[in-house]
Amino acid sequence: MRVTPDHLRDQIAAILTAWGMPAAAVAATAEVMLAADLAGIDSHGVNMLTLYDRLRRDGQITLAADVKTVRENSGTALIDGGGGLGHYPGSLAMNLAIAKAKEGGSGIVAVRHSHHYGAAGIYALRAAEAGLIGCSMTATFARAIVPTFGAEAMFGTNPIAFAAPTRRHPPFLLDMATSTAAAGKLKLALQAGKPIPAGWALGRDGTPTTDPAEALATRLLSPLGGSRELGGHKGYGLAMMVEILSTVLSGAAFVGWGLARHNVGHFFLALDPASFREPGAFEADLDAMIDALRATKPLDPAQPVLIPGDPEHRTTRERRARGIPLAPAVLADLERLAYEAGVAFTLVPPSPLPMAAPLSSME
Amino acid sequence: MRVTPDHLRDQIAAILTAWGMPAAAVAATAEVMLAADLAGIDSHGVNMLTLYDRLRRDGQITLAADVKTVRENSGTALIDGGGGLGHYPGSLAMNLAIAKAKEGGSGIVAVRHSHHYGAAGIYALRAAEAGLIGCSMTATFARAIVPTFGAEAMFGTNPIAFAAPTRRHPPFLLDMATSTAAAGKLKLALQAGKPIPAGWALGRDGTPTTDPAEALATRLLSPLGGSRELGGHKGYGLAMMVEILSTVLSGAAFVGWGLARHNVGHFFLALDPASFREPGAFEADLDAMIDALRATKPLDPAQPVLIPGDPEHRTTRERRARGIPLAPAVLADLERLAYEAGVAFTLVPPSPLPMAAPLSSME
Repeated sequence: MRVTPDHLRDQIAAILTAWGMPAAAVAATAEVMLAADLAGIDSHGVNMLTLYDRLRRDGQITLAADVKTVRENSGTALIDGGGGLGHYPGSLAMNLAIAKAKEGGSGIVAVRHSHHYGAAGIYALRAAEAGLIGCSMTATFARAIVPTFGAEAMFGTNPIAFAAPTRRHPPFLLDMATSTAAAGKLKLALQAGKPIPAGWALGRDGTPTTDPAEALATRLLSPLGGSRELGGHKGYGLAMMVEILSTVLSGAAFVGWGLARHNVGHFFLALDPASFREPGAFEADLDAMIDALRATKPLDPAQPVLIPGDPEHRTTRERRARGIPLAPAVLADLERLAYEAGVAFTLVPPSPLPMAAPLSSME
Repeated sequence: MRVTPDHLRDQIAAILTAWGMPAAAVAATAEVMLAADLAGIDSHGVNMLTLYDRLRRDGQITLAADVKTVRENSGTALIDGGGGLGHYPGSLAMNLAIAKAKEGGSGIVAVRHSHHYGAAGIYALRAAEAGLIGCSMTATFARAIVPTFGAEAMFGTNPIAFAAPTRRHPPFLLDMATSTAAAGKLKLALQAGKPIPAGWALGRDGTPTTDPAEALATRLLSPLGGSRELGGHKGYGLAMMVEILSTVLSGAAFVGWGLARHNVGHFFLALDPASFREPGAFEADLDAMIDALRATKPLDPAQPVLIPGDPEHRTTRERRARGIPLAPAVLADLERLAYEAGVAFTLVPPSPLPMAAPLSSME
């Protein structure tokens, strides 16, 4: 079933409000979650509400979090998330970084005492939509990535998101975990009954496994690159860089310390091209770079070279037009969460006329 | 043969001076080149002088370059390298970023009209030695990395360097090309008569090759991750991020445009932890993170988990104590360059007594 963006936003907001989240935080959180669902990053959107429900029941997040800026300098700031979800402090942090960049050229804001903040790319894209370069990274509360030469996970999937503004093309958008593959891909392989490539995860003996069931049991993900020979030490280094910028810089807790109380940190950067170039020159050069890359000689003429962000932009266009598809299990979870929260379950299929327009008419 | 750091710095400086480089640029360039040789990044140190000689003869670099700051904001600056080598404008840029970070929390400086600047990690390490987080990236003048689904190279090896200050441990230092393997490793495999792993480079038909001779002929390097299945699109995205920050931000030339005149750009960032944390808290937490990572359960007890920067720090200690080893071919090149430049060839083995102290006494 497909639902309209407005319906999904309202349903998320109703549940968060019933859980005790203040209105400003509800609006920001629902917007970031919806943006992930629109972009096809289904694992980081409304899907996460059941996890958030568990976290609040376990006392790992406070819905009525007191979010405040605790330090500020002309180019930097530190925000305390008050032990709540990360979407609201994350949105405030990126907005503050954007404001500082428009003033002094660059803005860097760290967030501590936070938790899951959705998809990193949504924040980076906000900067690009404001005409700025944007970057966001985050630590996570669950270990996944195994350092090179190690046999236990010491980092989360520690994503890096980077976006840059354009004029003719959609913005450049890189949004990547620093693991070789996301945990969600292991589940897909298991459901499909297919082996996973060696290089995604380690088995019980610490060597690469091709069995998705074993990989899901060990939860030992390889850093980008996989083995040492194929550059896995670089992925490990990137995961540690993300952890330093998200955790050590903000004063959050390194997941590898194994503390009982979650304290997740994030990192945000905005940078104004107009501090470096004549107005429009950055966007024109990035457009020309994208043109050159699309014209790269392809290995297979049927599969041209893509630009990072192409899948997210295409899915966002398609879902804005046709609605957001939700699997029956996700709908059932949402119905249960709404019932338990004492709010109406309002997700209905979009009206057939405007939403069922064929995709081709939109592109 | 091993030579002392002072002898090597003086020999480099004499040749650069004879080529017409002004004194301030000579001092900065020799220092950055020497630091690469000390750290064991042999491919980016004195080894490069023969390339620099060819570039100046080809008119691709100007030794008497006019380096100047052309734009400045409280948190950012743009430096024009004047068409010379990158070490001097790169050093000025990182120093300026450090000064801005000590003032307003962060400093970001881009450089255009530059060329090869040595090893990216040397600049990032300068910030860490000043108590700051440092980052440097650079584009290059030669294509190497093939975008995912492509059959031709569109980016250089576009490195990312990141360093962070510590107290008990040496600084964190990540210095990585965004290709799976460096071009130098292809040469080593060829010399050793060994195949290269599939995932390093593409052959003439655009598919992965294990023949180092073919890989050196095509010069089609795979982005970090290798194939699409193993995350190569992430390495491609990182290479493009580096190109955007180095080239588009500064107004340098994208290597994929294939312009006849080289115009290389670099990116520098410094960030003051004291803008975010109480004095010493960042360094203490990073030290504790490093302790936890060194204590990671290893796959093989004989190979503990390393921290990014360990090899560079160890080699620097060893070479400061015992001198820098130079291969006969490198010495012969330097002797020829000195002769052609009309300066004395002054590289002699270090005096045996203080320099021959066994390494173990230093560690």
